Amino acid sequence: MTNIKELAKMAGVSVTTVSRVLNNHPYVSIEKRKAVLEAIEKSNYQKNINAVHLSTGRTQLIGVVLPFSDHPYFALLLKGIAKKALENNYKLVLFQTEYLESRELEALQMLKQKQIDSLIICSRACDLSVIEEHLLFGPIVLCENIKSEKISTTFVNHYKIFQEALEYLYQKGHREIGYCIGRLTGTSSYKRERAYRDFLEKYGLPYHSEYIMDKCLYFEDGEKVINQIKQMDTPPTALLVTNDQVAAGIVICCQKQHISIPDEISIIGFDNEPIAKMMNITSIEIPLVEMGMNLFLQAVSSDISNKEWSVKLMERETV
Amino acid sequence: MTNIKELAKMAGVSVTTVSRVLNNHPYVSIEKRKAVLEAIEKSNYQKNINAVHLSTGRTQLIGVVLPFSDHPYFALLLKGIAKKALENNYKLVLFQTEYLESRELEALQMLKQKQIDSLIICSRACDLSVIEEHLLFGPIVLCENIKSEKISTTFVNHYKIFQEALEYLYQKGHREIGYCIGRLTGTSSYKRERAYRDFLEKYGLPYHSEYIMDKCLYFEDGEKVINQIKQMDTPPTALLVTNDQVAAGIVICCQKQHISIPDEISIIGFDNEPIAKMMNITSIEIPLVEMGMNLFLQAVSSDISNKEWSVKLMERETV
Repeated sequence: MTNIKELAKMAGVSVTTVSRVLNNHPYVSIEKRKAVLEAIEKSNYQKNINAVHLSTGRTQLIGVVLPFSDHPYFALLLKGIAKKALENNYKLVLFQTEYLESRELEALQMLKQKQIDSLIICSRACDLSVIEEHLLFGPIVLCENIKSEKISTTFVNHYKIFQEALEYLYQKGHREIGYCIGRLTGTSSYKRERAYRDFLEKYGLPYHSEYIMDKCLYFEDGEKVINQIKQMDTPPTALLVTNDQVAAGIVICCQKQHISIPDEISIIGFDNEPIAKMMNITSIEIPLVEMGMNLFLQAVSSDISNKEWSVKLMERETV
Repeated sequence: MTNIKELAKMAGVSVTTVSRVLNNHPYVSIEKRKAVLEAIEKSNYQKNINAVHLSTGRTQLIGVVLPFSDHPYFALLLKGIAKKALENNYKLVLFQTEYLESRELEALQMLKQKQIDSLIICSRACDLSVIEEHLLFGPIVLCENIKSEKISTTFVNHYKIFQEALEYLYQKGHREIGYCIGRLTGTSSYKRERAYRDFLEKYGLPYHSEYIMDKCLYFEDGEKVINQIKQMDTPPTALLVTNDQVAAGIVICCQKQHISIPDEISIIGFDNEPIAKMMNITSIEIPLVEMGMNLFLQAVSSDISNKEWSVKLMERETV
């Protein structure tokens, strides 16, 4: 591969002149321009796009931070982001973090170093203040329930969703209600826990810490949930399961163990994935692909916006 | 954001001098270096990493071409690629192509323009010759059954896998065997069709074109398959289903429609995803995460290698 120095040598001009010709800069004499173009022709030189980025300050790359790319929730957000990226001629740089702060910091560092134009953070482990410090280097968009004049966000209201789902189960006669989440420490989880505690307080119901089941992410975690429930003295009669994969895993496991749904236990899934529809699982529809598309549009916009999306309870046969 | 021109103006030196200071070039006087460093300090200038890439010729970015990121097959390959990328301090640039040639060409163009160091193509629509033309711009790795001295590949032998699965069903007494695939035109599909035709010929069985069911990618396609089969005069008694999502969809659909598995129809899934294990679906295990890890290692290696992976039939309850 010929580099810019070799081209300069071949053309008998300075490196600066070669750079000017590559970037269509006007202050180059006709003779020198011709010499450079001939050298390029001769050496089959490919313009190094990093030189263009250096001169324009834009890369057409958008960073996407997500903990796991193989989880349907994030895969659907990514699908929406990727759809709009293609339409707008951007490429995506993927940061699969597994919720390690160090990996999120790498993404922020790339924004700082102008390797990406903006950053979309689908879910984070690091502190909000760390993210805010990096806003001066380029747009950062969050997929969480924050209303801020400084940072664009796309979100659903996890407090309200949980509250409404719990009320729905209460109206159906349930008093022992548990829930399954991906991780206890996320910002959405705090909001859900608050909704849960407020609900219990409103109706004077006791708090059972074992009713909150952590690390439920994949289909196969459904079995773990049922095994935990079987150990309990007073098992819950209904579960909110914050993703449909786990809900489907629970339903399959109940079928195998002859546990009747909804008679012995009721299930509400989240996201309304195709698996919920096919297995007749009551689920809360969250428009993840559309939210992903909006995250991308916010990432390339110079305006700050906070967009809340509404959800819909799809009543089926598991409650 | 201060750019290099503004820095030069602030420091009272040329743009070339600023660039030399940023890249630790030796030919800068102490006074000028000091002036530039003071201007940087004053303006809080962040080194534009594109300038570094221009001088090193490396970006630490690897491109990944895949048709859909939300499909478990590709999500698991991507998981393996992402795991090794993180370990080796590389970032991934994602090209979600939906099998459009134009989008694959964009990825090849980025390799040509040195925006990425190498390219991993998980599945392609464009011609092999087009890919080979781009090998001079950087390593390209394919996830398909090609043995070549020019290009690195990671693959399973789709001909052999299909042949063995068909033999297995034949030994179990099946004579009317169909199969479901993601797309008819892929290179893997040609190999599978050849194995299928060779199998029919070997045992003198008739060829039914309707036994080959195309565009089976997602869970919800299982319903479509069952509806197609119900229209047939002589429906197949067994199906090879080239991914477990569709196999699971078929099993759920059969349960709903009271079609007995394996008595009325036998099912063999592919990939041995967790859903296959939980639903007791006989499946062919393909080590997708390990294959993804190998694809990455090939992408950063200067050697050409062709690595075939072996698979394993997991016998469960659907045959």
